[in-house]
Amino acid sequence: MKLYNYFRSSASFRVRIALALKGLDYDYASVHLVKGGGQQFAAEFKAMNPAALVPVLDDDGTVLTQSLAIIEYLDETRPQPPLLPADAAGRARARAIALAIACEIHPLNNLRVLGYLSKTLGVSEEEKSAWYRHWVETGLATVEAMLAGDPRTGSCCHGDMPTLADICLVPQIFNAQRFNARLDHVPTVMRIHEHCLTLPAFARSVPALQPDAE
Amino acid sequence: MKLYNYFRSSASFRVRIALALKGLDYDYASVHLVKGGGQQFAAEFKAMNPAALVPVLDDDGTVLTQSLAIIEYLDETRPQPPLLPADAAGRARARAIALAIACEIHPLNNLRVLGYLSKTLGVSEEEKSAWYRHWVETGLATVEAMLAGDPRTGSCCHGDMPTLADICLVPQIFNAQRFNARLDHVPTVMRIHEHCLTLPAFARSVPALQPDAE
Repeated sequence: MKLYNYFRSSASFRVRIALALKGLDYDYASVHLVKGGGQQFAAEFKAMNPAALVPVLDDDGTVLTQSLAIIEYLDETRPQPPLLPADAAGRARARAIALAIACEIHPLNNLRVLGYLSKTLGVSEEEKSAWYRHWVETGLATVEAMLAGDPRTGSCCHGDMPTLADICLVPQIFNAQRFNARLDHVPTVMRIHEHCLTLPAFARSVPALQPDAE
Repeated sequence: MKLYNYFRSSASFRVRIALALKGLDYDYASVHLVKGGGQQFAAEFKAMNPAALVPVLDDDGTVLTQSLAIIEYLDETRPQPPLLPADAAGRARARAIALAIACEIHPLNNLRVLGYLSKTLGVSEEEKSAWYRHWVETGLATVEAMLAGDPRTGSCCHGDMPTLADICLVPQIFNAQRFNARLDHVPTVMRIHEHCLTLPAFARSVPALQPDAE
């Protein structure tokens, strides 16, 4: 198994956590998203993933893209430990929390969007930073409301075992911290984040510990 | 079963298609996203969905949010006809196409993002429209590359039966057309779109035929 990824990419970080939770070994292939205009735009990489995005997982010739699709695939092909709850309503809740991050926060703040704001719309650094924080802070407030007061929330987003929801939450908090977003309004989110980082699969998947970390 | 939705919302449109493919009846509850500043911000609605987004599906007291999580739930609880391929690699491909739309195109172009561009960043109507078309046109070019030339593509995105991928594709094309995006560069996408609209479940879920259509 070979994971094409980048230490700082939060979609890559999600897949690293899932692989670690499953106890799966893999070759780490670094795709530098900035150097030389972005290695993800190389013809060889785009032949694997026309989206020119990391991560890509090559599972013995089966080439997979989109972090959430990769994680669902890993959960279907290597069921232990499960990354989704056992019941349909619980699975829907874990997926909804994951999607509240993956669809409502992360897409607004990735490199190409921030680049469009600067280069095409001529937005200032200050406005770009405010844009970033706005979507993180309001998006995480929604996640907080989904978690706080719901009896299904445990030491993790859904019960006490990490699921797809936690796998999306932790990388998003790393990003939020990097951009100095406010986090004091999301205590449940932060409690879960800190708990997850005590788990070896999360702890060893953080950006700073990857071979391409700067 | 009760679906809180809005005729023009493409995430709502996705769930309507899934319900129709499954042959499930439901009460249509309209949540007008514009009128009175947006009915999705009403306290009663936000108690169901803190994200203040449609759709929300109430399945006999089980309240579900996030269109893709809702569709996976429907597929798990009402397995026939399946909305995902049978094999793990095929499921991953259908999900990746769906996510290439739901994570890479749609989030950049929803109402609240367009509102931020106008109100907070003071972007002109022309620039806003160019932003919209940029993400749709580049995003669909990626989807086209994922579909064209892959032998698994059939009359639908994956084979000849509609999956989650088609359920996301068709509403995105409706949006693209509404904003006059270019579509001549994505012939495979358009061929599949037109085929899907010959299927009754897609045809009767289009915005213009909903009770709250304007």
